[in-house]
Amino acid sequence: MTEIPRVEPRAGLSCETPGLAPRPPGSFEVLAQAGPARAGRLWTAHGPIDTPCFMPVGTYGAVKGLDPDDLRACGSQIILGNSYHLGHRPGSARVAGLGGLHAMIAWDRPILTDSGGFQVFSLRGLQKLDDAGVDYQTHFDGSRHRLTPESVLRTQAKLGSDICMILDHCPPGDASPTQMRAAVDRSTRWARQAIDLKSGILAPHQLCFGIVQGGTDHALRRQHLAELAALPFDGLALGGLSVGEPIPEMHATLAEIGPQMPQDRPRYVMGIGTPFDLLAAVRAGIDMFDCVMPSRHARNGQLFTFAGRLNIRHSRFRDDPAPIDAACTCRACRSHSRAYLRHLHEQNDPLYGRLATIHNIFFFHQWVGALRGALHSGHFFRTAAAFSSIITDHYLKEVKPASGKRPAATTPPAPGPGPDDSGAASC
Amino acid sequence: MTEIPRVEPRAGLSCETPGLAPRPPGSFEVLAQAGPARAGRLWTAHGPIDTPCFMPVGTYGAVKGLDPDDLRACGSQIILGNSYHLGHRPGSARVAGLGGLHAMIAWDRPILTDSGGFQVFSLRGLQKLDDAGVDYQTHFDGSRHRLTPESVLRTQAKLGSDICMILDHCPPGDASPTQMRAAVDRSTRWARQAIDLKSGILAPHQLCFGIVQGGTDHALRRQHLAELAALPFDGLALGGLSVGEPIPEMHATLAEIGPQMPQDRPRYVMGIGTPFDLLAAVRAGIDMFDCVMPSRHARNGQLFTFAGRLNIRHSRFRDDPAPIDAACTCRACRSHSRAYLRHLHEQNDPLYGRLATIHNIFFFHQWVGALRGALHSGHFFRTAAAFSSIITDHYLKEVKPASGKRPAATTPPAPGPGPDDSGAASC
Repeated sequence: MTEIPRVEPRAGLSCETPGLAPRPPGSFEVLAQAGPARAGRLWTAHGPIDTPCFMPVGTYGAVKGLDPDDLRACGSQIILGNSYHLGHRPGSARVAGLGGLHAMIAWDRPILTDSGGFQVFSLRGLQKLDDAGVDYQTHFDGSRHRLTPESVLRTQAKLGSDICMILDHCPPGDASPTQMRAAVDRSTRWARQAIDLKSGILAPHQLCFGIVQGGTDHALRRQHLAELAALPFDGLALGGLSVGEPIPEMHATLAEIGPQMPQDRPRYVMGIGTPFDLLAAVRAGIDMFDCVMPSRHARNGQLFTFAGRLNIRHSRFRDDPAPIDAACTCRACRSHSRAYLRHLHEQNDPLYGRLATIHNIFFFHQWVGALRGALHSGHFFRTAAAFSSIITDHYLKEVKPASGKRPAATTPPAPGPGPDDSGAASC
Repeated sequence: MTEIPRVEPRAGLSCETPGLAPRPPGSFEVLAQAGPARAGRLWTAHGPIDTPCFMPVGTYGAVKGLDPDDLRACGSQIILGNSYHLGHRPGSARVAGLGGLHAMIAWDRPILTDSGGFQVFSLRGLQKLDDAGVDYQTHFDGSRHRLTPESVLRTQAKLGSDICMILDHCPPGDASPTQMRAAVDRSTRWARQAIDLKSGILAPHQLCFGIVQGGTDHALRRQHLAELAALPFDGLALGGLSVGEPIPEMHATLAEIGPQMPQDRPRYVMGIGTPFDLLAAVRAGIDMFDCVMPSRHARNGQLFTFAGRLNIRHSRFRDDPAPIDAACTCRACRSHSRAYLRHLHEQNDPLYGRLATIHNIFFFHQWVGALRGALHSGHFFRTAAAFSSIITDHYLKEVKPASGKRPAATTPPAPGPGPDDSGAASC
């Protein structure tokens, strides 16, 4: 049986360490390495982030149902907001009027905001692209708007996020090579515009990350990476992954491109992922990732454990007095049985969603925290191997079909979100 | 301007006082009096309750969206569960299998459970009464069941509640005098059966309260009260109030009957009420009350303050950086603006419901806590007068119609709940 290297997600976090001398926003140190994998620390105006780091998604300014204390108790160091959603609801000027996103949501740790480009490009049929930007109709009320490299920075300046993402062109997973190349060229032009504009728009403490596209075409990814790495972004992200491509190709792209990203800047993969994806990303030297998976799955009854996922809706949990995971120390597992959680789920009590989301986010922070801790303690390869076994033993088996084949690694990801979702397809 | 005698709801509560020597369940002391009004302390197997005491309603074993820590932080000393709902979902045997209701919901303070009679009698057309009990079809799945004086005690024995309510016959507010008298006679017979049966069914530490009916017919109420006061119940409740009768009649009944209830036992009015109702009840010497009003109103956008109720859905709160109530110290008011709460409400984020419910329950505990504190400090009449002014200035005006009359005191209560609700009509 695989030994599970559990950690308390908030133990030892820099943001929980009083007296740590702050460094200027954008400072990034690599503190430990094991092959391409690395542990580091990124400073923002709202404090440090220990990497590798999973970032929960608070699309509209809240991780659904959770308050800042819940997130801190889970070990969340940084959360995401989405400029598309917040820019329309409640509106970026309104957020600015309330003192910015941090003040509005009462969260004093870092916030990263997506540019909104991903959402707008997912509004198929409701958007029209040109060289200078993209016109779109919102899914809220059909009103017409335009995103440009400049407008997304202006929105994020008003939100006051610590890390701002530029506008890129994220083509669908089934785009042709020609379309993919055009998207990369456009994204590079827009990235250069963003670099030219950002000092006039963003506050000095707001970091700005570039986004590398290119699908699973490694040559195209490398080219785009070279173009963006030449620009003075504070960090670089891989976009356009987990948008429908086969998982092995996505993991191969991570393994190929991750280690080639600049060593001295933080590396972020947008919109992933499953525990399996996170393991692949950390192994490839990625520092940051976000996904709605833990919160969305929680609401749907799917709870993550080191022994696989359980569906709390199942009738076998009706009388089960055990917590979700007996060794877990999250708020839900400390106090409540599977039977009670199932009962709350059946009664549509919002307490279910809160406890389940807390558990899943706690699990994701445990998962990544154990990998981070192993990097620091020099046991990364052993821990990564143990986690691989957990994936093989407990997660890949779950999607085993009747034929007896184990196809998880080639199974397409779960159905993607609608345009009103902030995560990428597999989230 | 009326001076607002604010209190911290949990400050000084006996259940927050370590080292208080416990007394046997059922022990009740009156500690302060002012006219018929009184402050006291009731002991249960799960600790003491300082009275007068408002009890939040957790129909299915949770005050919707709140966990035990939230309730403790609000100053909740005791919560309600409902035997009708819990007896069917998840089932009383299942609750017993999980160690009882306290263990299932992880609440270590007292729990009072209603018998389920009120709900069954509200299932018009789906129930059939006889002298020994009532047959009914559930609103869950139409399955047929029967309540008797014995069965409701057996259910509550399995739930393990600290205070159990007997089966009574609660006629509708528009019942004829003949029907009302028949209901009283039947309720007395059932009460005597409950007394005969309870020692063989309930655990020794479970308290058992009788329920006085009689509508707003004072003579009938007095007769029923005399019949029930002669039986060795641990406390007596007034049922059948706030079921559609005019509010002044309900308050008159409270004022008439409350002071005549046994001095040496706790007095409970079921299913009330508004801050106005609670003031009337405390003035009449009532010790305990429950209502879904704070939680249900919260979910509907109605937030209580000492300056009246505000509807957070109103567009005027869109940019309002103030908390719900600047002087309130609840979790919602300490951290969040009206604008953010409105935004969360608009986005259907369950965090809204939690914060709003916390605020309203905190308000209700403040309201009753101030009256209790005033009884102890000898300022009850002054505080009650100040609260009357608040009601007149801020609450009665809100329902002022265009004609300019102020009809609140004769306005029928808000539409009643369906059969799946645990509160009485005005809640």
